[in-house]
Amino acid sequence: MAVGDYSIEFLPVPGVSLAATACGIKSASTDLVMLALEEGSETAGVFTQSSFAAAPVLLSRRHLTQSSPRYFIINSGNANAAVGDLGYADALKCCEAVAELTGVSAEEVLPFSTGVIGERLPYKKIINGIPSLVGQLDEQNWLKAAGGIMTTDTRPKITSRQIRIGDQACVITGIAKGSGMIQPNMATMLAYLATDADIESPLLKELLLEAVEYSFNRITVDSDTSTNDSVMLSATGKSNYKVSTATALLSGFREGLKSLCLELAQGIVKDAEGATKFVEVQVKNGASQEDCLKVAYSIANSPLVKTAIYASDANWGRIVMAIGKAGVDVPAEKVDVLLGDTYLLRSGQKDPEYTEAIGTELMASTEIVIKVDLNSGTYKESVWTSDLSHDYVKINADYRT
Amino acid sequence: MAVGDYSIEFLPVPGVSLAATACGIKSASTDLVMLALEEGSETAGVFTQSSFAAAPVLLSRRHLTQSSPRYFIINSGNANAAVGDLGYADALKCCEAVAELTGVSAEEVLPFSTGVIGERLPYKKIINGIPSLVGQLDEQNWLKAAGGIMTTDTRPKITSRQIRIGDQACVITGIAKGSGMIQPNMATMLAYLATDADIESPLLKELLLEAVEYSFNRITVDSDTSTNDSVMLSATGKSNYKVSTATALLSGFREGLKSLCLELAQGIVKDAEGATKFVEVQVKNGASQEDCLKVAYSIANSPLVKTAIYASDANWGRIVMAIGKAGVDVPAEKVDVLLGDTYLLRSGQKDPEYTEAIGTELMASTEIVIKVDLNSGTYKESVWTSDLSHDYVKINADYRT
Repeated sequence: MAVGDYSIEFLPVPGVSLAATACGIKSASTDLVMLALEEGSETAGVFTQSSFAAAPVLLSRRHLTQSSPRYFIINSGNANAAVGDLGYADALKCCEAVAELTGVSAEEVLPFSTGVIGERLPYKKIINGIPSLVGQLDEQNWLKAAGGIMTTDTRPKITSRQIRIGDQACVITGIAKGSGMIQPNMATMLAYLATDADIESPLLKELLLEAVEYSFNRITVDSDTSTNDSVMLSATGKSNYKVSTATALLSGFREGLKSLCLELAQGIVKDAEGATKFVEVQVKNGASQEDCLKVAYSIANSPLVKTAIYASDANWGRIVMAIGKAGVDVPAEKVDVLLGDTYLLRSGQKDPEYTEAIGTELMASTEIVIKVDLNSGTYKESVWTSDLSHDYVKINADYRT
Repeated sequence: MAVGDYSIEFLPVPGVSLAATACGIKSASTDLVMLALEEGSETAGVFTQSSFAAAPVLLSRRHLTQSSPRYFIINSGNANAAVGDLGYADALKCCEAVAELTGVSAEEVLPFSTGVIGERLPYKKIINGIPSLVGQLDEQNWLKAAGGIMTTDTRPKITSRQIRIGDQACVITGIAKGSGMIQPNMATMLAYLATDADIESPLLKELLLEAVEYSFNRITVDSDTSTNDSVMLSATGKSNYKVSTATALLSGFREGLKSLCLELAQGIVKDAEGATKFVEVQVKNGASQEDCLKVAYSIANSPLVKTAIYASDANWGRIVMAIGKAGVDVPAEKVDVLLGDTYLLRSGQKDPEYTEAIGTELMASTEIVIKVDLNSGTYKESVWTSDLSHDYVKINADYRT
């Protein structure tokens, strides 16, 4: 199950080529992807905060401080996590194999993995698959790559933005995978974004952090965070669009990148495990950003709110409960709660106009917007989530049986 | 569904009498309970931390500072929450009706409610039911009272302790309700504990806080906290067992109270919505109490861990994921994870002796113990939870349809 339509259209990015193959980690399906960047490209990355970060995350973090990457080697089916020092050595072997075949140094290769935790990486299968990948590298292969990094995703997440200001133009294209913050027996949200704009490394990192903060860092399916989460942004500089802190092109690029990240992030939620509804939680007029996020996540992660949304049950008492437990010091009598534009709660009590029939009709939609007005300040935040369905339990309980 | 056996045995408490009736809030079933304390009794209470605390919670908190309570009036079926000032006035009317009939002041009556949020309290039904309650008050009615406060609970939670040191003896009896931190469309965990020991008010409060901290504050079903949670402890002083900070009787009472609270709290988890398993999460050798609790709750509240337990799937990667996201600064290579006494993870990686077959056998039990050794300090903590089953979604999604 998944919510709404999706698109598979994309624009190639000059300087970026990709390839995908089936190397045998997963039976039959594509499980190995390569992304190649032309010399002179810059790359920024953000990684999971998990204290059990997987070996490829540790190695990619390290290589990123040592060089400007030329190749990413990405496998699905095995997370290479919780296997100790062996995992690190196995990931390094894969980087070395790519380096040897392409004539770069191992530090210029970043490894990524997604899949089962705690099993040794079948690195020989990966190494055997590398020559075929190198032979197939092509700028048109973004959609194949989006398919190759999927695990329990039911559809690829891919999108592009074209940005033009006067005579200067660039493209940003991105792919992502994940149908939960973590997969059934799998672990990972991965995203690869690339542009032909020309951006220096410190600014690239800053722009990525900002875009991730308001997109991938604002989605939740089940409150669970994976050991392998990684988002990469590469800039090849092949276009005439030069982004710097001084140019007017900066804001055009920033907005394009943010909107691209948001579309991919929301695409993950719409394809969440068992999802039948797409839910936006908006909190406004909070005393701080933290207050807004606490309330928004308390609602978005509440199993009782999520089961009510699944059932199209306008059980707004559960939203009140979730606000109440958020640990935010706001008197109940200040709080308004709306479903779309309809008041459920005004100044802490049920709106006299509100009826169960209205609520049921609003909740029947596949796209739900819950709005909370804290009437205590000027901050606002939004997060996105899915409902909690029979299929979520089915997928996660019965996956290995 | 519920896990394991339960007992309905109890000892009456001299100085405490109870009554239960059906006043018509819920169709046909018992929904109104009274608990009466003889003059001279002391009472301590702890209440929900929710910023949307229900009207009866606000009023009980206030009355408790103004007097030593003589009567509790408790209804199920309506939470009297999120209805604004009217809710407070309605609760006060119930207190006044009890006061008038029994000759005490309204401040000596504490009101409690559990049930639907956001609907006006049918206070006239409650007031009409009070004379019948007063006429039936009896020291033997604890089990009837335990039944009367139930909502979606499938069984009453009731237990007693007898404490004897030399010639001095007392009894503690308690009842509780709740089959989640919050009920489907309901809201509440309630517990009433009473003893005939003689305990002054400040010490009574201290002993209650301590016992609640390691029992009711260590259970989680779905991470959701209700607007009406209340735990009360009353001491009638009718026995010769005088508890003071100076006597040797203190530790006997403290241990008895703790063990009684733990049994009731665990009884709630065993009767949790849709529960098929009872799970204890033990975290030891943490650098702080907070670290231990963060890791324990991260595991106990993880939907992915809970669905794996439901499915008897020894998917220990999910436990690793939950430790990793807990926000505790412990290097992965220090962490051991055990299922009962069997190592899954030793020093951050899979134990070589561990096999899937062993894990599956251990997970098939209805009582699961997950142990985490952080090897970083001397603190330890335990929390208790249930699994996340198809029936949890069914109960919470389909309840009102």
